[in-house]
Amino acid sequence: MLGPIDHGERYELASPTALPLAGAFLWNRRMMIQATCRGYATAQFMQPEPAKYAHAPNLEAKTFMQPEQAYYAHHPGRFVYVKDEDTGELFSAPYEPVRAPVDSFRFIAGRHDLGWVVEHLGVRIELTLGLPTDDVAELWTLRVTNLSGRPRRLSVVPYFPIGYMSWMNQSAEWRADLNGIVASCITPYQKVADYFKNLHLKDKTVFLCERTPDAWEAAQAAFEGEGGLHNPSALQAERLAGGDARYETPAACVQYRLALDAGESETYRFLFGPAFDDAEAIRLRDAYLGEAGFAAAREAYAAYVDRGRGCLRISTPDADFDNFVNHWLPRQVFYHGDVNRLSTDPQTRNYLQDNLGMAYIAPAVTRGALLHALGQQQASGAMPDGILLVEGAELKYINQVPHTDHCVWLPVCLQSYLDETADFALLQEVVNGMTVAERLDAAMAWLHQDRDARGLNFIAQGDWCDPMNMVGYKGQGVSGWLTVAAAFAMKLWAGICDDAGRTAQAGRWRAVAAELNGAANRHLWDGDWFARGITDDGVVFGVSADAEGRIYLNPQSWALLSGAASAEQRQKMIAAIEAQLETPHGVAMFNPPYSRMRDDVGRVTQKHPGSAENGAVYNHAASFYIHALYDAGDGERAFKLLRQMIPGPDMADILQRGQLPVYIPNYYRGAHRQYPRTAGRSSQLFNTGTAAWAYRCVIEGLCGLRGCAEGLRVQPQLPAGWNEMSAVREFRGASFHLNVRRGGNGEVRVDGQPLPDGVVRGIAAGRSYRIEVTLG
Amino acid sequence: MLGPIDHGERYELASPTALPLAGAFLWNRRMMIQATCRGYATAQFMQPEPAKYAHAPNLEAKTFMQPEQAYYAHHPGRFVYVKDEDTGELFSAPYEPVRAPVDSFRFIAGRHDLGWVVEHLGVRIELTLGLPTDDVAELWTLRVTNLSGRPRRLSVVPYFPIGYMSWMNQSAEWRADLNGIVASCITPYQKVADYFKNLHLKDKTVFLCERTPDAWEAAQAAFEGEGGLHNPSALQAERLAGGDARYETPAACVQYRLALDAGESETYRFLFGPAFDDAEAIRLRDAYLGEAGFAAAREAYAAYVDRGRGCLRISTPDADFDNFVNHWLPRQVFYHGDVNRLSTDPQTRNYLQDNLGMAYIAPAVTRGALLHALGQQQASGAMPDGILLVEGAELKYINQVPHTDHCVWLPVCLQSYLDETADFALLQEVVNGMTVAERLDAAMAWLHQDRDARGLNFIAQGDWCDPMNMVGYKGQGVSGWLTVAAAFAMKLWAGICDDAGRTAQAGRWRAVAAELNGAANRHLWDGDWFARGITDDGVVFGVSADAEGRIYLNPQSWALLSGAASAEQRQKMIAAIEAQLETPHGVAMFNPPYSRMRDDVGRVTQKHPGSAENGAVYNHAASFYIHALYDAGDGERAFKLLRQMIPGPDMADILQRGQLPVYIPNYYRGAHRQYPRTAGRSSQLFNTGTAAWAYRCVIEGLCGLRGCAEGLRVQPQLPAGWNEMSAVREFRGASFHLNVRRGGNGEVRVDGQPLPDGVVRGIAAGRSYRIEVTLG
Repeated sequence: MLGPIDHGERYELASPTALPLAGAFLWNRRMMIQATCRGYATAQFMQPEPAKYAHAPNLEAKTFMQPEQAYYAHHPGRFVYVKDEDTGELFSAPYEPVRAPVDSFRFIAGRHDLGWVVEHLGVRIELTLGLPTDDVAELWTLRVTNLSGRPRRLSVVPYFPIGYMSWMNQSAEWRADLNGIVASCITPYQKVADYFKNLHLKDKTVFLCERTPDAWEAAQAAFEGEGGLHNPSALQAERLAGGDARYETPAACVQYRLALDAGESETYRFLFGPAFDDAEAIRLRDAYLGEAGFAAAREAYAAYVDRGRGCLRISTPDADFDNFVNHWLPRQVFYHGDVNRLSTDPQTRNYLQDNLGMAYIAPAVTRGALLHALGQQQASGAMPDGILLVEGAELKYINQVPHTDHCVWLPVCLQSYLDETADFALLQEVVNGMTVAERLDAAMAWLHQDRDARGLNFIAQGDWCDPMNMVGYKGQGVSGWLTVAAAFAMKLWAGICDDAGRTAQAGRWRAVAAELNGAANRHLWDGDWFARGITDDGVVFGVSADAEGRIYLNPQSWALLSGAASAEQRQKMIAAIEAQLETPHGVAMFNPPYSRMRDDVGRVTQKHPGSAENGAVYNHAASFYIHALYDAGDGERAFKLLRQMIPGPDMADILQRGQLPVYIPNYYRGAHRQYPRTAGRSSQLFNTGTAAWAYRCVIEGLCGLRGCAEGLRVQPQLPAGWNEMSAVREFRGASFHLNVRRGGNGEVRVDGQPLPDGVVRGIAAGRSYRIEVTLG
Repeated sequence: MLGPIDHGERYELASPTALPLAGAFLWNRRMMIQATCRGYATAQFMQPEPAKYAHAPNLEAKTFMQPEQAYYAHHPGRFVYVKDEDTGELFSAPYEPVRAPVDSFRFIAGRHDLGWVVEHLGVRIELTLGLPTDDVAELWTLRVTNLSGRPRRLSVVPYFPIGYMSWMNQSAEWRADLNGIVASCITPYQKVADYFKNLHLKDKTVFLCERTPDAWEAAQAAFEGEGGLHNPSALQAERLAGGDARYETPAACVQYRLALDAGESETYRFLFGPAFDDAEAIRLRDAYLGEAGFAAAREAYAAYVDRGRGCLRISTPDADFDNFVNHWLPRQVFYHGDVNRLSTDPQTRNYLQDNLGMAYIAPAVTRGALLHALGQQQASGAMPDGILLVEGAELKYINQVPHTDHCVWLPVCLQSYLDETADFALLQEVVNGMTVAERLDAAMAWLHQDRDARGLNFIAQGDWCDPMNMVGYKGQGVSGWLTVAAAFAMKLWAGICDDAGRTAQAGRWRAVAAELNGAANRHLWDGDWFARGITDDGVVFGVSADAEGRIYLNPQSWALLSGAASAEQRQKMIAAIEAQLETPHGVAMFNPPYSRMRDDVGRVTQKHPGSAENGAVYNHAASFYIHALYDAGDGERAFKLLRQMIPGPDMADILQRGQLPVYIPNYYRGAHRQYPRTAGRSSQLFNTGTAAWAYRCVIEGLCGLRGCAEGLRVQPQLPAGWNEMSAVREFRGASFHLNVRRGGNGEVRVDGQPLPDGVVRGIAAGRSYRIEVTLG
């Protein structure tokens, strides 16, 4: 059904129907495009807020990315119709809109490009999409090959719908001077101030052709006619009519009429994207639109993406896992860290966690992000709900809703950065008159004071993820998770202070952490696990007495990390999680799913997936738990859950999730007991803090190659099913070649010498270290 | 191509492809639905802000109604698939989504319902939509008749797409207890305060069946499958699979498998609409879903619409015109006046003009509206940009942009009300401590003071329509139109004051009107017409020196009304309008169209139709001019332009405009010289102040039956092509039977007696008057 899936830097899918929502994404510094295997696409670019150049057929709401986005016939996409001029037969590549059952199909998700190879009616269509590194433009290559062994007369018609651009001045036409179709509009506005804001927006969409087509059409309706997108009326004529769009929905359709001898090919190149004016269109054309320009852009883009290759290469008995970890996971981490999800105001927790991931790829970026975030710390020590990245950016959407957890992520991110770099000088950097260390103290102090009389942290309208808006909106409700998360943050910060010689502060924060852990134990321990919180009206929830939302994962994970849980508690919690939260598709964020609104808990009962819209396998939460398990030495359980995050290797698993293993999505649906049909489905959203944590878990947990102030601590945790693994880890300028195998008792050797405490000290940049570990 | 168009209360269209955007609308107190002849539909209901129960396939922006809205395969609509179970042949009624070339097609736009009769494959499908009067629900009747003369086995599958409801908790399923499909969601929100606002929203969409279907499907994707909407995969099986939607796009699809003997029929009824909960669904079902319920609703709804039959019945040589005036025009006026365009915050100018129209239908409504509007007058005498109609309503969209014309519409609306009723007692009603008369004085005083040193009225960010936001945003720019409009308003108010015995005020406002007219003549007379205004930077525009936007209609129309124009000026203005603004599709609002943004004028250069997005035949502006022409006694020219507002009678005209003559749209595209392909196209928007003014022009201008303080002034203006006409006019409780014919010199007789000054005095309610006019 799926056909062969190659491993490594390219994933292939051999059917357009098996995983209808599945696709892959490309991005650069200014744009991202998510394309499905069937040819639908969603592209956004920054100017500086996210904008589109190919639109839905109606006036779409501006919103954040939607999970499991549904596609429909007129959804934006990139399509090529192929018509046999002798028989009138028609198909489209890659699959939509004709949906012909083609003879062969390959969707190829590469790290640096996307492509399709489709064969039908004796014709091969090869379609490739690449991006430049610093411009907003799609670079499309179309190659048509006659496989039929006889001369053929074909029409090949790229159809790039542009959609409903605007109710102001929408039009499109063929521009002979630019050799392409140019669609124009004015971004709609009503308030005069917006006119000036909009003055520099790129309100044109251009589809530029390297080779002049034989005919074209710029109006969607004229192209489609009564035939419909599966059989456009315009293709029944010999030539497209050359029409324009005047306050009509634009489309870019160009027709090449070609005669191909047996075995002959033709290649066409197109550039699709936004432009401010003709001059910009010309600049883009001159920079890219040709064989040499495309090749140079491809090389530069590959070099750009390869800057995100990360610090680890592994070789284990699980080749699928290796491919994911070596190629796809660091790519996803780099995407987050380098472009901050293409947002101008990332949530503070996302910004810091994305940069936690970047510590393993380009730690200087993490350093800059920590300083940038601290520059927006409030006088109270609190962190804002989002970090503004560009002049004029505003807090939007959920960043207008007060959450109380943002300070937690400062030491969490800082820890990873220092583990990678030992750059303790950062702590003395001055930001707005205070050192980083003082700002961390202030953040911890804010968390310390933002508690109720019981000593538990207020939740306000939410913490971490965004769905619990009703627990504490009256100002009384508290968060079990946040209380132990704050304790963990203070514990981390205390450890950093120790390493930095700030002994007094280390003691202070260790004491406060103990105080928080104590409060959690006094008020939230439910017998076998920690409660999720206490509502404004004093109702403890996430407890055994609850029929729905009985147990939440996060309070357990972070209680493991914070030290709130005794050995006995740990055992009970992990057993409860195994019994109640582990599913065939991963570990759920909570369970059982809510079947209705619980007014004192809030949106968690109303949103997020699983067929019940909640109770999902929220990979970000799962990744915290996996980290905690590795931290606790339970590498067996940790790896099982980590492996579940990646679709496959079984085909059945990929089919159920509906996703190729080219990224970890933010969730898989839960509620597998209630809604088995849809359980496990991928959200298809690649924006998630999961990537950073999963990468960290592989590096520091599975491979056990974790930095510390003195050097590199070696403590791999091989899953039971494996007899050996190897890894190459770049760390502080040196290379560490790790070999782990069964048959010992945990002995670590460096370059053949035993290392009793497992810490490699005195690391010399440029050197290569051979590390051998034998495990029981 | 169109087939026969019946005249009268039903308009028929015999092709689904001739006028692809054309349709008709139904409304009641709580909802409206606009359906196209092809089966697409846009429905909104008030809760209290406009909301939808059938959605686009993506997250649509909340916006005002869009002109020339484009449709696409997955646009909301109401469809019925018919499959021959023996041959597998398929078509859909009315036309979409299969788009089969059916044997016969009739779209029937009635005043009280909408319907289709489609015949194909030997099967007749009759579809009828009615609305209840006070509930939000669509009442659908589907009748299937076997015309083939032999027994048939059919599947009949109503498919009502529900679309993307929400990213919170979207689901749908068959509910055996309700005998229908129920789709549910939570209206998305992020701020906790919105949770409470949303608590009472109707978040369910129900499709209830009178007769239990044989099978059903609640998920859009499962229904469509790989076949696509033109050939849904689910219909290739014997039965729909009975699936549900769980965080998937919902649809209501039900399948009836029926065996029909030759000539046999089956009838099905469905109820489609929003519901708060099961109880509401049950209430709606019990109230309506059955033969008796549908019949009662039909009767009640017809009675409701007939309350808007208006005060005039005409019989002229132009039967198309008669039908429009007798049936459709007052219906459109009533729609505006009774439900205020289903807005909670209508623009003040719209609210007052819509109620101007209501003076000819239900003057008590106009009275209430004047009082309601004055209740929101500001202390300064200014009127707000919108009138709030319900508790909690807010000024939205364009109503947040300051315009300066709102006071003008008070005396304009009041004049029509007093002409109809002579209810001068209204002037003494007290609103918030001031009488109506005092409030009118205050409004006129506000207009009087809101002028620059030259005595011209400031424009701020716009006047009347919304497109000139840059002329005066710095606080200096002035409006030529508003200056003469204010003069006209004062002249009207002075006349009313005279009639009400407020002689001093009459003198005051007459003097101010003269002052304004003088200022207009001093600063804005351009030699052959009045300028449109003067920008912040002192640039006079809408003048002969301008290459684009050289002449604007409104300043001329209102200068005619205000008395600013001398006889010689009138002649020049009318000649200039004829030469520069009259088009084959009506009189344009300005000309030539702008080809690019003019920064000192603003949005008029960027938006609104015509292929150049502007220079349109804006019917509302045209209706002012027609009124002015009738006022000036130029009934010949007035009628020509009035007649142009109604599509047809030539089929070529209907085709070019793309609209049935069941309402006057807000615009026809202009720029007929630049873009002849699209010139004349209807906006398909039935929300427009045009309706009220056009009705007034027919009553008071064409028929010349205009109220005044003393009674009814009779002064018909027969077009040259007509030798006679007759009309029945209801006025102050009496009936006036007018006959006009050629062959005299303007003599007016009432019940056989000559009436030298043409004013019928001492009207007795309940009486019937026979009025005969002989014209030269």
